[in-house]
Amino acid sequence: MAQEKAQATIKRWHKMVASKDLEALHEIIHPDAMFRSPVAHTPYQGRDALALALSTVINVFEDFTYHREFFTDDGKNATLEFSAHVGGKQLKGVDLIKFNDDGLIVEFEVMIRPASGLMALGEEMGKRVGAKLSEFK
Amino acid sequence: MAQEKAQATIKRWHKMVASKDLEALHEIIHPDAMFRSPVAHTPYQGRDALALALSTVINVFEDFTYHREFFTDDGKNATLEFSAHVGGKQLKGVDLIKFNDDGLIVEFEVMIRPASGLMALGEEMGKRVGAKLSEFK
Repeated sequence: MAQEKAQATIKRWHKMVASKDLEALHEIIHPDAMFRSPVAHTPYQGRDALALALSTVINVFEDFTYHREFFTDDGKNATLEFSAHVGGKQLKGVDLIKFNDDGLIVEFEVMIRPASGLMALGEEMGKRVGAKLSEFK
Repeated sequence: MAQEKAQATIKRWHKMVASKDLEALHEIIHPDAMFRSPVAHTPYQGRDALALALSTVINVFEDFTYHREFFTDDGKNATLEFSAHVGGKQLKGVDLIKFNDDGLIVEFEVMIRPASGLMALGEEMGKRVGAKLSEFK
């Protein structure tokens, strides 16, 4: 049940990314959700922080494509593998997402490789929302 | 079937990590396995490269602990989440592992966050095996 709800949320997320329409993003994120950035050590607190990060990053990524999907046995945690370009640098990444029983996102952690791709993303995100995001630490 | 073999390989891998005895590591890696480092863009080719990277990194990581395990539906791809310290820097990471039907590792990709942890790891790995590893590119 929890698994189906998590899957439904992922389906909605994929649709939002494909259409670049993130207006309903807050509907799939828990108010107390935590965002763990690939760059910064300290997590960002709350739905607004996560929504800001996600809605910015999908405009920073070029050729953004999802690949494999992995789940924990209980279906309440997913890993979404992706590839993209930022400023001419190729990168791979994962979204590690934790869902609650209602299928809402309660934690969203991103990891990026290689170092050149991570640096390019960090630089571009810093320019666009660095100051704003740091208010959520 | 393929799934059970992959699971058996992961079990052996966890035992090797726990005991820091990687003598049998080559038995679970396909000769043509590919290693995608968290730092470098270009992958490293072959079992020897992956074995060298893995046997080095488990001595670089302090407080190395595995957390969640995620699988694709066919059970032939796993994500292992971990945390560790390197040179006083805390880091999180994932191993994205692809198995063949016999449960052998054919691809091993690592991603690390945050940037400070990735840099600390890259520096330490570079010192220990940078030159040796680059022969496998």
